[in-house]
Amino acid sequence: MHGERRGDEVVVGGDARQRFYDASGYGRPLEGNEVALSRVEAAHLLLRGDVETVADAGERMGFQAFFADSTGDGFGVRFLVYSDLRRRGFYLSPAREGWVPDPAEDVDFVVYPRGKGPQEGDVAYRVRAVGERTAVQATDLGDRVLAVVDEESEVTYFETEHIDVDGGTETDLPEGVPGSLLADRVLLWDPPADLHRRAFYGQQLAEREGVGTDALQLSLLEAAYLAARGAVDVEAGYEGIVDAGRNVEGDRFDRRLRAYAALREAGVVPKTGFKFGADFRTYREVEDVESLGHSERLVRVVPAGHTFLPRDLALDVRLAHGVRKEMVFALVPGESDVEWLAVRRLTP
Amino acid sequence: MHGERRGDEVVVGGDARQRFYDASGYGRPLEGNEVALSRVEAAHLLLRGDVETVADAGERMGFQAFFADSTGDGFGVRFLVYSDLRRRGFYLSPAREGWVPDPAEDVDFVVYPRGKGPQEGDVAYRVRAVGERTAVQATDLGDRVLAVVDEESEVTYFETEHIDVDGGTETDLPEGVPGSLLADRVLLWDPPADLHRRAFYGQQLAEREGVGTDALQLSLLEAAYLAARGAVDVEAGYEGIVDAGRNVEGDRFDRRLRAYAALREAGVVPKTGFKFGADFRTYREVEDVESLGHSERLVRVVPAGHTFLPRDLALDVRLAHGVRKEMVFALVPGESDVEWLAVRRLTP
Repeated sequence: MHGERRGDEVVVGGDARQRFYDASGYGRPLEGNEVALSRVEAAHLLLRGDVETVADAGERMGFQAFFADSTGDGFGVRFLVYSDLRRRGFYLSPAREGWVPDPAEDVDFVVYPRGKGPQEGDVAYRVRAVGERTAVQATDLGDRVLAVVDEESEVTYFETEHIDVDGGTETDLPEGVPGSLLADRVLLWDPPADLHRRAFYGQQLAEREGVGTDALQLSLLEAAYLAARGAVDVEAGYEGIVDAGRNVEGDRFDRRLRAYAALREAGVVPKTGFKFGADFRTYREVEDVESLGHSERLVRVVPAGHTFLPRDLALDVRLAHGVRKEMVFALVPGESDVEWLAVRRLTP
Repeated sequence: MHGERRGDEVVVGGDARQRFYDASGYGRPLEGNEVALSRVEAAHLLLRGDVETVADAGERMGFQAFFADSTGDGFGVRFLVYSDLRRRGFYLSPAREGWVPDPAEDVDFVVYPRGKGPQEGDVAYRVRAVGERTAVQATDLGDRVLAVVDEESEVTYFETEHIDVDGGTETDLPEGVPGSLLADRVLLWDPPADLHRRAFYGQQLAEREGVGTDALQLSLLEAAYLAARGAVDVEAGYEGIVDAGRNVEGDRFDRRLRAYAALREAGVVPKTGFKFGADFRTYREVEDVESLGHSERLVRVVPAGHTFLPRDLALDVRLAHGVRKEMVFALVPGESDVEWLAVRRLTP
């Protein structure tokens, strides 16, 4: 079978309609038996030997010439993702006008459920294909699979989804517990025991010794959240705590405080995620710190306009997977509510 | 027992020499039975109740007043690390003139082997204590334990060590294999099989299909390394490959190429570490890609003058630990040889 280049497409005739489109989900049907293939589809069929050559202005190209001729605008990356998904047994279409209904700008491929093709209209994944060095806007993620081609041409898939956070931790806060703001933490010298034991605020100063004080160390985030609700009282006030926070980490403190507060308000308990290189690990339901379960999520806080480098995503998601937690990004906008973006490793 | 503040120290008398120094490794002995305690040692003994008060200008302070009076210059961080190591059963001394021989500027504590104290002169760890927001110079690491206090006052320990990289992979390179530089990779259309199979260069274009071409995709790093040694020949030459690399990742490409070359020259095989968010995963010895073992290390390449944020270190080291690999940073200076810094999680 031989094809012919027409603009950005390759047209194949003969039994193409039955063989390529009906039986294997390639291309978009034209009049009669002809099928138009996108360049990645044509390159894939050339590599498999199902199409022998593509003629362009009289020149007949095999895979090598066609591939070398097609680089630029991410063709190589799209080709590798397309081929990888085909190898995994999926039919898929370029997300282009004429191939799929309602193509979206930030989607490269529409992948059909295994065993199905473009005829049925069901969709398994909407895939965006990028190279590992391409930064990706946070706003372009969610309800998308990000397929990243690394520098050695391997493909890694990330499923991205907007989620709600929701927990079952109920807390009665005390009123006006006095504390001291000391450098980058707040000490409560004689707090009510439930503040730590039930609501899981702070860390006991002498917890593991069984000697010393009952003092509770609060992080600046915990202290600011509690001070804003009248539960903790330090001489410098809520503003003094926030100033101390901004002093050590700038704007980041404000973003983290908003994410922290949104989690607490949803009944979820955030504690530091430092050991995992994240902002928080979170517990859906805490009744007593003595019988604390597994924390379910790792949260990294970023501005809503953040761009992700795929390598950083790979690091976070791989780590979270390794410790059996879900990686969630808190996207913090200027004014409106915090949004939550879950990113998971996907093996299609 | 009561202490008395003298300058930056707290002096205790009575049976202090025997009770604190000889039996428990606190302080430095003065004349007679007196012992001078550093502020962290004094605070620790106050918290335990072994010292009841410290007098300063006539005022007697308990733990709370002494602690609140001592913040600034990282006192809180040092106190938490000191207490944590004591709780773990170690004796340790502040790395100060009079307490230990040859104190180093970037070390806060000298920790003695379990069961030993300052009298014997053996050292288990030299510890630097920092808060999680304090950036640490790469040049200050190696032969040190970095103790990081996170915002919730938990301590995480990282052992840092300069290492040599050394492998057993032997490779005969071919000569002048022709290739095409296509965007951000190089394709060898008809390479000798051993280039991939034995020396583990590149990724086969149609590996898993068993159909298509024998073409090998090289990363720009692999291609540049091979072109510099005459093994691969592309029209744009070595310089053309390096230009393409700089074009997609700037200076970082040059640093990574130097680390890549140093690893290959040492008989170690570096492949992409993308799935782990690192620059490379490395194999000490490759004989045949069909019988490839476990990669032993993850390598992140940084400039020699890099400063680490403890949170980033925590992320890398935790991930490496989870996949049973050693985390190694390649410190790439302007001119001299690449240095290798291994960082491991430590539970003292």
